[in-house]
Amino acid sequence: MNDFPHVTTPALLVDRAIVARNCDRMREKAAASGVIFRPHAKTHKTIEIARMQHGGALGPMTVSTFAEAEQLAAAGFRDITYAVPIAPEKLDRAAKLAAGLEHFNILIDSVDALQAVESFGRAHGVAFDVFLKIDCGYHRAGIDPDRPESEELARQIELSHAVRFRGLLTHAGHSYHAKSIDEIRAIGADERGAVTRFRNRLGFALVRSVGSTPTASVVSRFEECDEVRPGNYVFYDAFQTTIGSCSFDDVAVSVLTTVIGSYPERNTMIVDAGALALSKDPGPDHVDPQFGYGIVCDLSLRPQPMKIHALSQEHGKVSAQDPLPVGSRLRIIPNHSCLTAAMYDVYNVIERGSVIDAWSPVRGW
Amino acid sequence: MNDFPHVTTPALLVDRAIVARNCDRMREKAAASGVIFRPHAKTHKTIEIARMQHGGALGPMTVSTFAEAEQLAAAGFRDITYAVPIAPEKLDRAAKLAAGLEHFNILIDSVDALQAVESFGRAHGVAFDVFLKIDCGYHRAGIDPDRPESEELARQIELSHAVRFRGLLTHAGHSYHAKSIDEIRAIGADERGAVTRFRNRLGFALVRSVGSTPTASVVSRFEECDEVRPGNYVFYDAFQTTIGSCSFDDVAVSVLTTVIGSYPERNTMIVDAGALALSKDPGPDHVDPQFGYGIVCDLSLRPQPMKIHALSQEHGKVSAQDPLPVGSRLRIIPNHSCLTAAMYDVYNVIERGSVIDAWSPVRGW
Repeated sequence: MNDFPHVTTPALLVDRAIVARNCDRMREKAAASGVIFRPHAKTHKTIEIARMQHGGALGPMTVSTFAEAEQLAAAGFRDITYAVPIAPEKLDRAAKLAAGLEHFNILIDSVDALQAVESFGRAHGVAFDVFLKIDCGYHRAGIDPDRPESEELARQIELSHAVRFRGLLTHAGHSYHAKSIDEIRAIGADERGAVTRFRNRLGFALVRSVGSTPTASVVSRFEECDEVRPGNYVFYDAFQTTIGSCSFDDVAVSVLTTVIGSYPERNTMIVDAGALALSKDPGPDHVDPQFGYGIVCDLSLRPQPMKIHALSQEHGKVSAQDPLPVGSRLRIIPNHSCLTAAMYDVYNVIERGSVIDAWSPVRGW
Repeated sequence: MNDFPHVTTPALLVDRAIVARNCDRMREKAAASGVIFRPHAKTHKTIEIARMQHGGALGPMTVSTFAEAEQLAAAGFRDITYAVPIAPEKLDRAAKLAAGLEHFNILIDSVDALQAVESFGRAHGVAFDVFLKIDCGYHRAGIDPDRPESEELARQIELSHAVRFRGLLTHAGHSYHAKSIDEIRAIGADERGAVTRFRNRLGFALVRSVGSTPTASVVSRFEECDEVRPGNYVFYDAFQTTIGSCSFDDVAVSVLTTVIGSYPERNTMIVDAGALALSKDPGPDHVDPQFGYGIVCDLSLRPQPMKIHALSQEHGKVSAQDPLPVGSRLRIIPNHSCLTAAMYDVYNVIERGSVIDAWSPVRGW
């Protein structure tokens, strides 16, 4: 087995073939369902994978930072949704981006935000494309679709001459709290139900945009929506495989690490992947409170009877009945690939066990 | 109050005067105690603060990555300890570094590691400076000073012609689990006791190197040791102020953030500092299981009755009786400044409420 001798650890390995398969599967499902496919770039933050998401084309994209949007715009992508509620201070940067794109869609969920966007737009001669963010039960951002004030806000956006109302956007982030495929399916029904019900009450044509990797992964066809925006599915991770969004073989990323301390007398070893190499995401601790900071595997990605029970900055503490000798290498399936991938300046792209390329995610905001 | 209008959020603010005061205080305590001062660079990862740690000089340093070591070496620092047990695969890089320095000290804690270092050294004509890592109760890395095998290993290093035995190094990481200054003091006594006892049993001259920010902060003088290596003290954080290592006014870093969603009907707001802006470190949850992901403050760093109860990638969910309007700015004292600072490519250096400089930490490994 290849232990990637030229790769210094810790390092992020990205399996190109698995990413391609994950990308193709989701894109084909969206095409077969007749919905707009606007995948999220936040998990990978690279041009290479954005193109793979669209089978090589420059299709609609979703981003979580301006840095991601600017990177995609520079690479020729023309229609981008910034899926985080816009802060008024960022409108200037949004206007610059919008000027070079067909659509740069921003998110609002309050009268205050609408007014900030309108008054900036009037002052600078810009009419922003806006989505109204709907809360479908996650209770992070978004308006409650069942409150009368929400309908008023939607009508106010529709009547505004200072913005273009493109649609309703929701994100079932609470699907991450599910414990089974059935629970994910039920949350998916809430997700599309929230935007469909609200749109029907408004009675005008609006794109219904939905998307979370769990809800998008467990259905065979997208229904009651016009656009889907999954992101994590390109890589998946220990979390997604545990709650049932994917199989273990669908996970495309792992952290290569080296054993740097071995203590058989206390059944532990230390690896050189700590909090900065893995992130401190606790993983699916709602399913297993003792999950540990990733799934420890051998170089062939076979899970080992070992648990990462603590992380300090550059050390991972691993419990193991039979600790491996210093210098041994392991691969760790990260708990949350979005947070883990963001820790790296470069991804080691592998195919059939060898490094074939290096991709650089965009950083910062 | 200045709300840093030219700084786009999220952003890390570093108060230069507080860093300088923290640096001076620790350095002066080490000087007054007559011990070698070898501060850690892992928290800040910058040349600017490494120099401040030594009052402008190029003194002995401690690092957690080769990237930090290479950055310091390039800036003229001559004596660096890599305080993570060495992986055999990194010896080549270590030898290159050692060739350009007076001392590049590496850490070992097993016969296997000693043999790897010796055989590499013989093959390449390098005699590494080594410290033997001692476990003083943290049970991360290090040998148990009370086992006979540990004494044998130390004697083997002393007799080796392939390495130079510089000393015993320990880190009381378990001081982070303390709940009070008294508990930290007791752990500090264990820390220096472990290396002193072991050295006395060996009976030969060895540097006793100790250091964790809690144990180094709560004593007025360093005793029973020859070298100290604190690191977090340059910034401190919510964790350190909670367990008693510092006062709230000693914390030198904060994350500037903007309110991007405000939901009075559910007593929450959303800020644009999420898991990638703060890190997912849970903070001193052994003191308060409901601590939240940082201390939410106004722009003058007065703590507010608000709690960051959840983080997603780019959103912080804040509970607040009176949510602020969209566009408001806040400052968040991070739970663990080492992990938070590492999320940024640039620090906004402030003095008397204005940005005066930009420092870039080194990234990766």
